[in-house]
Amino acid sequence: MTADEIQLLCTDLGHKARVASRALATASATLKNDWLQRAADSLVAAGESILAANAQDIGRAPEFGLAPAQIDRLQLTKQSLDAAADGLRQVAILADPVGRVIEARTRPNGLEIRKIGVPLGVLLFLYESRPNVTVDAAGLAVKSGNAIILRGGKEALQSNMALHRVLQTTLAEVGLPTDAVQLVTSTDRAIVGELLKLDEYIDLVIPRGGESLIQRVAEEATMPVLKHFRGNCHVYVDRAADLAMAERIVVNAKCQRPGVCNAMESLLVHRDIAATFLPSVGKALQERGVEVRGCEETRRCLPWAKPATEADWDAEYLELILSAKVVNGLDEALAHIDQHGSHHTDAIVTEDADAARRFVAGVDSAAVMVNASTRFNDGFELGLGAEIGISTDKFHARGPCGLNELTTYKYVVSGTGQVRE
Amino acid sequence: MTADEIQLLCTDLGHKARVASRALATASATLKNDWLQRAADSLVAAGESILAANAQDIGRAPEFGLAPAQIDRLQLTKQSLDAAADGLRQVAILADPVGRVIEARTRPNGLEIRKIGVPLGVLLFLYESRPNVTVDAAGLAVKSGNAIILRGGKEALQSNMALHRVLQTTLAEVGLPTDAVQLVTSTDRAIVGELLKLDEYIDLVIPRGGESLIQRVAEEATMPVLKHFRGNCHVYVDRAADLAMAERIVVNAKCQRPGVCNAMESLLVHRDIAATFLPSVGKALQERGVEVRGCEETRRCLPWAKPATEADWDAEYLELILSAKVVNGLDEALAHIDQHGSHHTDAIVTEDADAARRFVAGVDSAAVMVNASTRFNDGFELGLGAEIGISTDKFHARGPCGLNELTTYKYVVSGTGQVRE
Repeated sequence: MTADEIQLLCTDLGHKARVASRALATASATLKNDWLQRAADSLVAAGESILAANAQDIGRAPEFGLAPAQIDRLQLTKQSLDAAADGLRQVAILADPVGRVIEARTRPNGLEIRKIGVPLGVLLFLYESRPNVTVDAAGLAVKSGNAIILRGGKEALQSNMALHRVLQTTLAEVGLPTDAVQLVTSTDRAIVGELLKLDEYIDLVIPRGGESLIQRVAEEATMPVLKHFRGNCHVYVDRAADLAMAERIVVNAKCQRPGVCNAMESLLVHRDIAATFLPSVGKALQERGVEVRGCEETRRCLPWAKPATEADWDAEYLELILSAKVVNGLDEALAHIDQHGSHHTDAIVTEDADAARRFVAGVDSAAVMVNASTRFNDGFELGLGAEIGISTDKFHARGPCGLNELTTYKYVVSGTGQVRE
Repeated sequence: MTADEIQLLCTDLGHKARVASRALATASATLKNDWLQRAADSLVAAGESILAANAQDIGRAPEFGLAPAQIDRLQLTKQSLDAAADGLRQVAILADPVGRVIEARTRPNGLEIRKIGVPLGVLLFLYESRPNVTVDAAGLAVKSGNAIILRGGKEALQSNMALHRVLQTTLAEVGLPTDAVQLVTSTDRAIVGELLKLDEYIDLVIPRGGESLIQRVAEEATMPVLKHFRGNCHVYVDRAADLAMAERIVVNAKCQRPGVCNAMESLLVHRDIAATFLPSVGKALQERGVEVRGCEETRRCLPWAKPATEADWDAEYLELILSAKVVNGLDEALAHIDQHGSHHTDAIVTEDADAARRFVAGVDSAAVMVNASTRFNDGFELGLGAEIGISTDKFHARGPCGLNELTTYKYVVSGTGQVRE
């Protein structure tokens, strides 16, 4: 495509999304929920044709040089389609974030002030591989009253198109604008750059993928970006920890699902309990195939551990590797987390309420855990429902981003003719 | 200064602010309020030396080519210092936004989830002329637990330095870090550009000044920007309006303080009442020296009005000029506001509850007024307390930005050893 054609295509996408967003903003909860239920049913009903489209993508995967893990992520099954449909049904059950009253007060002059939730407007969602994300993102967008422009990876194009067809057909069936959910079908790389210029039409861009994608988007975007960067999560085992609990939490945080952003990457152990705790937890980790890279003192307790380099303290491994360090106490732990952490999720294990309080106050992360696994920093686990990502930004939304985080608010002021003196 | 010197200076400012922000984040409400009270007292006590510094700035104003209105804004008096001190005392009374519990729930597995307010970290505040803003911004920043770097206009440098001296001295007296409030005293223009690169140290930049300053900052900043762009505010007088009330609101919204962003700039009148309403409100406006620029129909009712051009519908006059248009009804009013408005503040005057409801739902602005003056979109008037500006952004904060809007949050999860299955 020529630059002019790309510009035209993107402006058209943006304009249509903006128009659709106006209708969505005032759509009733009933209508949006009807769509979610119907789309869920239709996804299941259209299973065969979706899986056939997915088979085409899988067939072309070697062309794109996909690794086995990536092909695995690309693969749809009857089970994963059912799960995507169930996801939509669960979003239907969640409270409508649009129109919710966030604050309300009456002023001495009789003015009634209400701060109410309203949609952001138009979302641009950039993602890779996993096609069921197409369904999740569309469901969250429509329920929160936002139009969404989806741009998936070229390796998942046939799957995404098949899923998108179901979403658009059902939007039309219930009487919602089909442009509420648009899919970019051209794989021209210049399109992303052009879309990122359209702050007139797009209110928020959400990149979900590797660090290089997020970095590029953050640099080029003219509109706000909801980032979820890396998670270098710590567990600090305090002197006053229940050591059996600490071991359970460390093993869970590291091993239960090592490839995700809220898995633990670094273990900090108070000097006073290192000689007791490390051999025991080390054995449990070793049994689960975890490679430990430790400071000198850690290696005195765990002779089989590899030596940690400075780079290990900053690493997000996303696999069964753990860095481990013995610290002199809470202050050193806080300083280490501040220097090396990624402000995602950090945990303390302690029975000392004062240490817990100081840890909670001193750690500047989206989620701080006391006597619980880092793996709980998740929309469902925190009771927020489905999420579109976990923000490591401080601005607008932090931590899991669900329906409420996809809205902004406005003040509605109702009077009886009040004027300012 | 050389580029290297500027870089060094800015990194030093950023680093010191970051260190101070850590202490501030855990400072007690009592300590912060003690500072606010003491700073207020000291500002009044140091009045003479501050006014002397201000006199130097006033003396140099012709050098900078300041217009009389600008000199007026630059001028400090005993009264304006008292008002600034009172502002600090009022901030001291407001609830501490740090540590406030925004949400709390217990999960079925016993995890206790709390979403609590925490400071953003380090603010960069860029502003022009009015030196009392130095005091207001510092007060809001410290109370919300944020360190702040202040960069005022060169024309107010002596005044800002004198005010800043009092703020820093009192910070030291109560035991808060003096780097909590830093003032950039070099007037080198390259400093702003360098500071805008420091997203490692600065969490948010707030530009307060002309549109060109805000535009420049939005383009250059690597960190989020809290913008308050122009206010092109509308009042729509519906067919079902109480016309006496409508006249009171229109006159107030236009005339009470025409130079501010929440003043009305454009009047929309329903066709059915135009012939009755326009002559009457026109007379009231004419008596107050308002120039009306109207559509053809408006001019049939107000022969003395000037013809409006297309540019008038987009104009933020900030003076006693008003554009006026007769519309066929609510839908045309909504379309006009959507096309020409600035998403700041728009009002409807009507006794028809359904029209009010449709207007509130259809207008995508920070504040929507029903039967009240646009002038009420203000932190104090909405009951939020002092504000650092009125955001026209949708992201993070919209409308008046007070203490809560200068914070973010974190999730604190307290358990008894829970792990994920």
